[in-house]
Amino acid sequence: MDIAGLLTSAGINIAICVVLLSLYSILRKQPSNASVYFTRKLVPEPVKWSDPFCLERFVPSASWIMRAWQATDEEILAAGGVDAVVFMRIVVFSIRVFIIAAMICILLVLPVNYYGQDMQHKQIHAESLEVFTIGNVKEGSKWFWTHCLALYVISCSACVLLYFEYESITKMRLAHITGSPPSPSHFTVLVRGIPWSQDHSYSESVEKFFSTYYPASYVSHQMVYRAGTVDKLMKDAEKMYRVLKTVEPQCREISMPCCLCGGTTHSFKVLNNEAESVKSKISDDGLQPAQREKERPAAFVFFRTRYAAVVAAQVLQSSNPMLWVTQLAPEPRDVYWSNLSIPYKQIWLRKIATLLGAIVFMFVFLVPVTFVQGLTQLDQLSHTFPFLKGILRQKFMNQLVTGYLPSVILMLFLYAAPPTMMLFSKVEGNVSRSGRKKSACIKVLYFTIWNVFFVNILSGSIIRQLSVFSSVRDIPTQLAKAVPTQATFFTTYVLSSGWASLSFEILHVYVSKYESGGQFWPIVHNTTIFSLVLTQIIALGVFGIKRSPVASGFTIPLIFFTLLFNEYCRQRFSPVFKRSPAQVLIEMDRQDEQCGRVEEIYDQLRSAYCQFPLIARDLSTSQDLSTAGNTWQNKDQGSSQDPESLKPGNQLVKLNE
Amino acid sequence: MDIAGLLTSAGINIAICVVLLSLYSILRKQPSNASVYFTRKLVPEPVKWSDPFCLERFVPSASWIMRAWQATDEEILAAGGVDAVVFMRIVVFSIRVFIIAAMICILLVLPVNYYGQDMQHKQIHAESLEVFTIGNVKEGSKWFWTHCLALYVISCSACVLLYFEYESITKMRLAHITGSPPSPSHFTVLVRGIPWSQDHSYSESVEKFFSTYYPASYVSHQMVYRAGTVDKLMKDAEKMYRVLKTVEPQCREISMPCCLCGGTTHSFKVLNNEAESVKSKISDDGLQPAQREKERPAAFVFFRTRYAAVVAAQVLQSSNPMLWVTQLAPEPRDVYWSNLSIPYKQIWLRKIATLLGAIVFMFVFLVPVTFVQGLTQLDQLSHTFPFLKGILRQKFMNQLVTGYLPSVILMLFLYAAPPTMMLFSKVEGNVSRSGRKKSACIKVLYFTIWNVFFVNILSGSIIRQLSVFSSVRDIPTQLAKAVPTQATFFTTYVLSSGWASLSFEILHVYVSKYESGGQFWPIVHNTTIFSLVLTQIIALGVFGIKRSPVASGFTIPLIFFTLLFNEYCRQRFSPVFKRSPAQVLIEMDRQDEQCGRVEEIYDQLRSAYCQFPLIARDLSTSQDLSTAGNTWQNKDQGSSQDPESLKPGNQLVKLNE
Repeated sequence: MDIAGLLTSAGINIAICVVLLSLYSILRKQPSNASVYFTRKLVPEPVKWSDPFCLERFVPSASWIMRAWQATDEEILAAGGVDAVVFMRIVVFSIRVFIIAAMICILLVLPVNYYGQDMQHKQIHAESLEVFTIGNVKEGSKWFWTHCLALYVISCSACVLLYFEYESITKMRLAHITGSPPSPSHFTVLVRGIPWSQDHSYSESVEKFFSTYYPASYVSHQMVYRAGTVDKLMKDAEKMYRVLKTVEPQCREISMPCCLCGGTTHSFKVLNNEAESVKSKISDDGLQPAQREKERPAAFVFFRTRYAAVVAAQVLQSSNPMLWVTQLAPEPRDVYWSNLSIPYKQIWLRKIATLLGAIVFMFVFLVPVTFVQGLTQLDQLSHTFPFLKGILRQKFMNQLVTGYLPSVILMLFLYAAPPTMMLFSKVEGNVSRSGRKKSACIKVLYFTIWNVFFVNILSGSIIRQLSVFSSVRDIPTQLAKAVPTQATFFTTYVLSSGWASLSFEILHVYVSKYESGGQFWPIVHNTTIFSLVLTQIIALGVFGIKRSPVASGFTIPLIFFTLLFNEYCRQRFSPVFKRSPAQVLIEMDRQDEQCGRVEEIYDQLRSAYCQFPLIARDLSTSQDLSTAGNTWQNKDQGSSQDPESLKPGNQLVKLNE
Repeated sequence: MDIAGLLTSAGINIAICVVLLSLYSILRKQPSNASVYFTRKLVPEPVKWSDPFCLERFVPSASWIMRAWQATDEEILAAGGVDAVVFMRIVVFSIRVFIIAAMICILLVLPVNYYGQDMQHKQIHAESLEVFTIGNVKEGSKWFWTHCLALYVISCSACVLLYFEYESITKMRLAHITGSPPSPSHFTVLVRGIPWSQDHSYSESVEKFFSTYYPASYVSHQMVYRAGTVDKLMKDAEKMYRVLKTVEPQCREISMPCCLCGGTTHSFKVLNNEAESVKSKISDDGLQPAQREKERPAAFVFFRTRYAAVVAAQVLQSSNPMLWVTQLAPEPRDVYWSNLSIPYKQIWLRKIATLLGAIVFMFVFLVPVTFVQGLTQLDQLSHTFPFLKGILRQKFMNQLVTGYLPSVILMLFLYAAPPTMMLFSKVEGNVSRSGRKKSACIKVLYFTIWNVFFVNILSGSIIRQLSVFSSVRDIPTQLAKAVPTQATFFTTYVLSSGWASLSFEILHVYVSKYESGGQFWPIVHNTTIFSLVLTQIIALGVFGIKRSPVASGFTIPLIFFTLLFNEYCRQRFSPVFKRSPAQVLIEMDRQDEQCGRVEEIYDQLRSAYCQFPLIARDLSTSQDLSTAGNTWQNKDQGSSQDPESLKPGNQLVKLNE
């Protein structure tokens, strides 16, 4: 591909990008879309549109970009939480590194590459892209120190930036932990692997164990029950509610009860009866066989202080490590109830099985990728399929097929990966919805790295030369040989998928369901370090091929120092992302005590985790705790987007009353 | 090498073994050696020799072997602790696996190998050893299922045995934890990385931090001081004491004070003054600049209960993970005081540096190993050094050089490894002597595996074929090619080093200094699993070379299931070896309370950890706590071998009084 081909590809992308941004700019001004784009703003202060049909509504403007750019971290923190800030930081960090890399490469490396060989240069726009790569520099050239210097500058600046980002994100996370209002998940430990006993029910075992060993801090517990009819009916109702909500989003407050009353009265009668019976079981402490059968060996245990909960979650409880397994509980609305019933003994097997499944899936995915790879190597393709020769001779088609089609096909296939990974993560047995999604995201991330980068390079090599797996020592050399030949593909991949998909992300509005407190930063950090080291290894290989021992020699300590830097960050910052520091937790517990809101928190704990929300509401109403319940929800800033409040449970209680 | 060569080697070994065992049998009967061999027995009940000059004393007997064999686990447990039982279990486990492997190989595999090819067999004693290896079976033979079956039987029986061993050792460890008498190390947490403050001394910071965050369980603390003159003098005195002890071991009780009084009065005067001044500093709570300067940012913090100490050791204390780093303290006599002064920030760097150092050492070690390897391949050697041809033509010399010399030279070189690794482990910054030794042992273990196995194979290949590092996919094939060619060397290695070195271990008497409660079992388990998987991978390669797809196909699931078994054991048992279960600790704490020995324990805690034993004794005498001190030592069963009591500190106090 030549410069013109690259420019065609870039042109298509920029055009798509501009169109999409303009569309967004127009769409966001329409009053009917206000509830889509400004939900969060609408909650505190409804936006009013003075003139509904002015021209301005249909003219794209760029002022929102300026406003978005000018937003400070504090504003984003207030609007979207720590995760949003961390995400923005990632974007800014990437832009910064990209600018540094672009500067040094354009000013230093590109001229060296271009004049790397004694050759007759064509006009610049007809020049092949390969002239600009390191492949053009002749062997043993003295100019490789420029590449080495560029590598040093990029690595060092990336490391320095990473360090400051890690430092400030750690501070932000600590501030988030300190500043977050009391949430039931802070005081709750999820216990799995409760041992089976003939004399006691699971519930009694839990009570006995924790009142014996944690008499000072144990408050109460809530068993996990086998999902029965109630659960299924609830899910049906929720599904129907969602369907109705999408049809008439604006009049939900008024229309919902009517709609529900209209169609499915029968279901609710059954539900009501079932709920009554379950309620009686819960309120009754006797050993009913039906209740014992419904109990699963898992429970939520509530503690008096955050610190006690964290300690109970971290300490090894029993001499059999497969029993009394504790971990901090997920938030109530984040609990993935159906996975809680899975016996803990299965979890490790399930994890291994899903890991294997994901690996198999990655290899199965080689088929489409190899096909895509074939498209970028047109000469081989037209050699294999002679009938394509006629079409491919046309210049535009050639540019389109080599420049754009491969990455589009790859993107389409990549869209199949996330649902598959979600399925794997469900089977894995995660106890929280966010945990499941996080696990799926990590799988997709590795999958993307593997597929987009390695498989493209290696399958490219499959077509060209049959031996793929090379010797251990030769990996840098092999990568170094393979990567520059695929540079064209990556340039087009970045140009096509990068801009277009980024602007596509705008047509989406993401509702942040879970606030992890920036817990995904270490993954970003590790991935960046991995990319850096990979770049360095490839450079090492290139220097080796090009016979520049000085440059190779200088690259090895760079790899070593990058890994050392990573280890330092792992020691200095990452523990805070895994465990909450005792100092902070104890301070928070003391503040709660001083504010006198301890009793209020205990009361709320009892009803926070409820497998069947309906019963909980019922119970809390009957115990006259509803006032306290409201206080809790008002205090919890996150609860403004709480999907729980949109669940049919609330409505159903009203119906029952 | 032929069968005769092997028999020569085996003959030499058996002879050495018998001589050594007879020597031991005679030596142990000499009254003058009783204190060497029966120290432990002598402590409770002195053995008396009725007739000092009977003939029986000089005739070797085998009855002790029978008695040793008949000893039950309970007897060994009582005599040598959990570690001794676990060690015996390892020996028994190895013998069992060896018997199973030997049975199946002699009955099934050996005949198949011997008749594997249509060939004229020589007389059996003149047959080359290679006829008995798998190399003799012809390609594509249908008899490879026997090898595959043998692999399955050995792997499965090893796994089953491992499982039962792991289970019973875990039980033993738990019983050891439950049954062990209260020791100061159970209640003590070592804190490092105490932050520097302008207003407070380190000691005040510790006091403030722990009385704020652990008000219910914090008892007191003991700072670590910079090792000064006192420490050096103490060490000199101790060294001298040891020299004197070796000269006159029997009359140490009487002679010691005189000897000490005689020569070095000056030193003791200085020591006395120095000690006085330090004592005054410790008793004085004011902020003396000298004291502040001597304090290091590390301290031992004492807690009221075992559980509180474990919790404080496991929880992340501060929002900066490099500050207030806690871990359970080693036993008082196990503390490696000089390493405690190392700033915690350096530890991770030191660990990486020593790891790198150990790796470099391993590669430097390639030189002698390659030389040794050359000796087993005589034809190449005589080709390189023609003047050796004459000597090597003699049959006996040939047998000696190929059969015995290589492993002897290798053994001699291997003796250089442990001191080097001990040096590395010292630099690493371990806080306990046992931790340092454990770290060195693990390094030596990996070093031995690497050197004896891989390097021998790979350097053998260096001489024969220049390409060493093969492709990733071909590793099993390469190993399969290399291992059978080196089988002769390993057979002789096992025969020579195995028997001779085992019987050499008998002329040694080991004093068990530390009781880890069988903590080294997981290492044994992992090494066994590693060996099994390695065997399976090599077999996979052999089957591949010999073109037996069925056998290869059956080996792959075996590898998978072995790894799965390992993962199960890791989940089910290994946490108990890393952390003590809360349930057990809390029960122990309650028992202490019920027995009313809590106050006694607290009193003892204050004087247990003392950098300068002299001062501690002095202080405890002045506080009239000496009675309680004796009680403690009597309760602690391990203290009968306490080196502390043999230290000059005791004597010096007497001198001072």
